Amino acid sequence: MARWEPNARERLERAALTLFAERGYDATTVPEIADRAGLTKSTFFRHFADKREVVFGKQDMLADRFSDAIRAAAPSATVGACLAAALESAAPGFTPDRHDLAVQRRAVIAAHSELQERELLKGARLSSAVADALQARGVDDTTAQLAAALGVLAFSTAFVRWATPGNQQPYTEIAHAALNDLRAAAAALAADTVIRA
Amino acid sequence: MARWEPNARERLERAALTLFAERGYDATTVPEIADRAGLTKSTFFRHFADKREVVFGKQDMLADRFSDAIRAAAPSATVGACLAAALESAAPGFTPDRHDLAVQRRAVIAAHSELQERELLKGARLSSAVADALQARGVDDTTAQLAAALGVLAFSTAFVRWATPGNQQPYTEIAHAALNDLRAAAAALAADTVIRA
Repeated sequence: MARWEPNARERLERAALTLFAERGYDATTVPEIADRAGLTKSTFFRHFADKREVVFGKQDMLADRFSDAIRAAAPSATVGACLAAALESAAPGFTPDRHDLAVQRRAVIAAHSELQERELLKGARLSSAVADALQARGVDDTTAQLAAALGVLAFSTAFVRWATPGNQQPYTEIAHAALNDLRAAAAALAADTVIRA
Repeated sequence: MARWEPNARERLERAALTLFAERGYDATTVPEIADRAGLTKSTFFRHFADKREVVFGKQDMLADRFSDAIRAAAPSATVGACLAAALESAAPGFTPDRHDLAVQRRAVIAAHSELQERELLKGARLSSAVADALQARGVDDTTAQLAAALGVLAFSTAFVRWATPGNQQPYTEIAHAALNDLRAAAAALAADTVIRA
């Protein structure tokens, strides 16, 4: 019988990421993850389709969150304001209690080339989703695509900075700073004044 | 005995892309490609590791070409000039006699989700290569990453425009126009004036 297990999803996530770090991603099985979490295999499969979804499940939701935030922005919102709203929409995933999970997740991906490919691919899909949402607001194709690339860069920079061991700065602050840095870089590229740092 | 076959690589490429269009990518085998080209299977394998390399072989060379062009640019070259040099370095692959192959290649990729993923991944890797080459010149990380994203967008836009049935405009002209459009978009994003088109 299926029972309600408190925090089952997060317990499975913690168990999985710990095992991936200890034994490697490929060598870890779903029964081992469930066992480490003190749960059953069927509880695992109520929360995740497979072990890859433990690593990328949250990221799969990002494209929808970003798109929804851009669609929900005021009609007078600039593209910059839309990107800021998109980045802010990810904040619920970056609470202090998830910091150690994010640090582990980064290490697991860094150690596995197939997961790195998957991460790159998710970034590319996130960029398409942002570009589509901007175009739906009437932003021209070229600007929408560059803005999407800039927004995804801001997000990945913010994620890496936030998920650094010892970081205490809130995600939203880091994300806004990353967006501002990239807007400054866009100005420099537009003026074409950059030779070196 | 291995014999020298005139234009074997291009004959195999044409045969492969035609068969992919006719039968689908998955249903086409290497012996069929060799047969259609009037060549042997072993000639195929002297030119390509597998059928996927027929689709992506040229693209694998791009990261090196782009990096080399950026490294070879004058020490006083701006980032914009480095990106222009990178885009120009791809020109030998975009001659009028290769136009129909490029059109077919686009159609084959558009019809196959795994090839689309591979194409996205190649784009992400190309972007990393450009960012690394710019950083090696002393460009700061943020500017290098945004410039790389802008350069790869310019390249993919230029490729799509060039490989459109009926296009007669030379690749280099299209690439420069795409780069200029994106620089204008960067200015608009930096000023954050864009609400809609």
